[in-house]
Amino acid sequence: MQAEEFRRHGHDLIDWVADYLQGVEAYPVLPDLQPGDVRRRLPAEPPREPEAMETILKDFRTLILPAVTHWNHPRFFAYFPANQSGPSILGELLSAALGVNAMVWQSCPAATELEEVVMDWLRRMIGLPESFRGVIQDTASTATIVALLCARERATDFATNEHGFYARTAAALRVYCSREAHSSVEKGLKAAGFGREHLVPIAVDNELALDPTDLAQKIAADREQGLTPCAVVATVGTTSSTALDPLVPIADLADRHRLWLHVDAALAGSAAILPEKRAMFDGLERADSFVFNPHKWLFTNFDCSAFFCRDPQTLVRTFAIDPEYLRTAFDSGATNLRDWGLALGRRFRALKLWFVLRSYGVEGLQARLREHLGLAQEFMQWVVADPQFELLAPVPLQTICFRHCPPEVAAAGAEALDRHNAALLQRVNATGQLFMTHTRLRERYCLRLSIGQTETRREHVVAAWRLIRDCAQAR
Amino acid sequence: MQAEEFRRHGHDLIDWVADYLQGVEAYPVLPDLQPGDVRRRLPAEPPREPEAMETILKDFRTLILPAVTHWNHPRFFAYFPANQSGPSILGELLSAALGVNAMVWQSCPAATELEEVVMDWLRRMIGLPESFRGVIQDTASTATIVALLCARERATDFATNEHGFYARTAAALRVYCSREAHSSVEKGLKAAGFGREHLVPIAVDNELALDPTDLAQKIAADREQGLTPCAVVATVGTTSSTALDPLVPIADLADRHRLWLHVDAALAGSAAILPEKRAMFDGLERADSFVFNPHKWLFTNFDCSAFFCRDPQTLVRTFAIDPEYLRTAFDSGATNLRDWGLALGRRFRALKLWFVLRSYGVEGLQARLREHLGLAQEFMQWVVADPQFELLAPVPLQTICFRHCPPEVAAAGAEALDRHNAALLQRVNATGQLFMTHTRLRERYCLRLSIGQTETRREHVVAAWRLIRDCAQAR
Repeated sequence: MQAEEFRRHGHDLIDWVADYLQGVEAYPVLPDLQPGDVRRRLPAEPPREPEAMETILKDFRTLILPAVTHWNHPRFFAYFPANQSGPSILGELLSAALGVNAMVWQSCPAATELEEVVMDWLRRMIGLPESFRGVIQDTASTATIVALLCARERATDFATNEHGFYARTAAALRVYCSREAHSSVEKGLKAAGFGREHLVPIAVDNELALDPTDLAQKIAADREQGLTPCAVVATVGTTSSTALDPLVPIADLADRHRLWLHVDAALAGSAAILPEKRAMFDGLERADSFVFNPHKWLFTNFDCSAFFCRDPQTLVRTFAIDPEYLRTAFDSGATNLRDWGLALGRRFRALKLWFVLRSYGVEGLQARLREHLGLAQEFMQWVVADPQFELLAPVPLQTICFRHCPPEVAAAGAEALDRHNAALLQRVNATGQLFMTHTRLRERYCLRLSIGQTETRREHVVAAWRLIRDCAQAR
Repeated sequence: MQAEEFRRHGHDLIDWVADYLQGVEAYPVLPDLQPGDVRRRLPAEPPREPEAMETILKDFRTLILPAVTHWNHPRFFAYFPANQSGPSILGELLSAALGVNAMVWQSCPAATELEEVVMDWLRRMIGLPESFRGVIQDTASTATIVALLCARERATDFATNEHGFYARTAAALRVYCSREAHSSVEKGLKAAGFGREHLVPIAVDNELALDPTDLAQKIAADREQGLTPCAVVATVGTTSSTALDPLVPIADLADRHRLWLHVDAALAGSAAILPEKRAMFDGLERADSFVFNPHKWLFTNFDCSAFFCRDPQTLVRTFAIDPEYLRTAFDSGATNLRDWGLALGRRFRALKLWFVLRSYGVEGLQARLREHLGLAQEFMQWVVADPQFELLAPVPLQTICFRHCPPEVAAAGAEALDRHNAALLQRVNATGQLFMTHTRLRERYCLRLSIGQTETRREHVVAAWRLIRDCAQAR
């Protein structure tokens, strides 16, 4: 593609993106499709000859766009936000244009050093001590595997990297997390060779937070059996209900038993930039590692997961490789981020984060988060005030777990209520007016509204509540 | 950022990118900097208040750009290409704007199905049988870990996921690869808990390709000791010299001993779209998994690594998790790509690949690769024809390994030659006129010229050869 052609299509696309972001409310949040609907409209064979960009972009608009779930939509309340912003999209554009691979310092000094700088900005914003060093990972799942591998290596004096797990039959390494922790802990444990059965689920309290008494008992029982407690994953803001594991008593136990303490605050971590929410992170300074995702709730394009480690030496020693073809004259004085995680290649992700942090400023980011938090409190109050609905978990952040609970259905038993709410969810989402998802808490099926898209305002949350009530009544 | 502000800055940036791509030759390929030079010019604290996009973009141009290694430069001959193209950058822009997370089908049907379609296009283009299914991973390093985990689970009937490695003391799993294989194999083996000592290095032949006789002997020796041969990683196009491991005899051994055969052709795989190069992939159809990177040499932005698996059931069973909050009504009929690798979240990477494949067409891609291959042959002939230089490896693809070998230095011994060539590399790169890197082959220090940037033409390769010779004579 010649420069002038790039320029022409680039300008067209910028206008399209601006219009899209401005007009995204006009789209159904969730497309009305069945699996295979997209695939069968696309040719099975790649084209032999070049096609005009005009044709490709037309197909994008007619074949792809109608099959997109609009994560940008202000009435996207599903899963978790993957919010973003104009400055972030522009940062991604520049990063794509530069196309660097920041695997070692020399392969793009700007990418490595800007990543160090913006990660240190984030560290200051969330109040982590200076001893923590940050690095961008693609997702919190990957960050959790990285943390588990560091834990494994520290616990075995780096012998597992060298010899594998084979010699440890009698003293299996044990990892603890609450029953509400994210599925990535299980996935990471399997991948790292611990084995799923060595993930010890810890009971939760009334607020769905990890119960430190049960943790203490489980550790003691393992020790008695000759097993080796290795790591604990605490969650600040669980995926289902944003429950808050208590970090101080968990850190006490981690200290006493020399466990690696990894804190997963994938969504909630952004709230640490708010002084009034800092209390939920008390004890975080005693963690060994910490992850939160600016690509969830800090207006930065997916993917951008901020991983902090208190002992970067352990991290680097766990992942370092040193092939001749990657050696440079700067290996002693410079940071080579290839050794800070699993993948060798690295995109220039710091650029979009730098654009966002500067464009919003810390106060601008705080203001948007406070607005989302306030809307969640309002929605919660509507749920509590309506006798037909039931709140199913505390709302410390921006996610509300609730259900429709009319007396005549409740009288038919727990399963009837579950079915009733599953059907309600389907009716709500089928309108295309909003998209929300579900979970289960204490065996009960819950509707789950997660507030945090960049342009979500009070009117969108009001509309959501109205729609949910209308659909509930129209059953 | 308001839509109009996005529009204005977006148009400015498109013009900047078009100018940059057109004028990239004016930049030094490698910046002349020391570690810390970028960091110390940036503030230690994030801004409290919003900053104007104009200020941020000015800082991008004055602080960041001068510290960028220009992977787009037509005289970038280092490492491997991470080439790209206008259509790919436009695809990334759209993908950033949509900001979807394609973790499950429902979270963006278009992203999941377009990925299935374009990966199937790639499969046809490289001549893999229909039984292979493709998925995009971030990097070949990650794809290799994924393959090793599949191998581990198949070999242990999925018991390692469940119980860990603990029970296998007497029958450690063994993995084989040539001494020239990529460092990611070692990294993956460590991460997956096999242990580095269970990676068995296989000897290479005169052309630096894996020696199947040695592989057979190593497998037999392991069996005799009661160890469990588990997987072999064959490389088509090694990182150092693009050596070609012979797939047919390796596949024979893999069959006989029921090893998982993973083929790593991160760079070279693109050449499989050329009928005249297909012979180097003979036997690939017998692999269990295969990876190559369109982000290396197929004009698609980093990251985009194409991973193919012959038995997707094993892949999915290795990685599947099933938390309530990710269940949807479509889980039986649809592909949920979250279960096809380590990370849960996934970007919409198929879009840029679709743009590239259609915009170039298969014939357009073939033409560009053939031009690069031809240039490499020419450069090789210049090296061979010059008595002052020595070719150090065959050139089946686009990488030339060579050294300057003047008689008076050669007379001083092998170490003197190594030092001489290391100094020459430094002199060449210090000009900013080109960037190349080095490796070691059979203990000898080699200069390494890797041809494959999108805009690299004959004139750039001619200029490179002239500069290298000038720097060699000016010592």
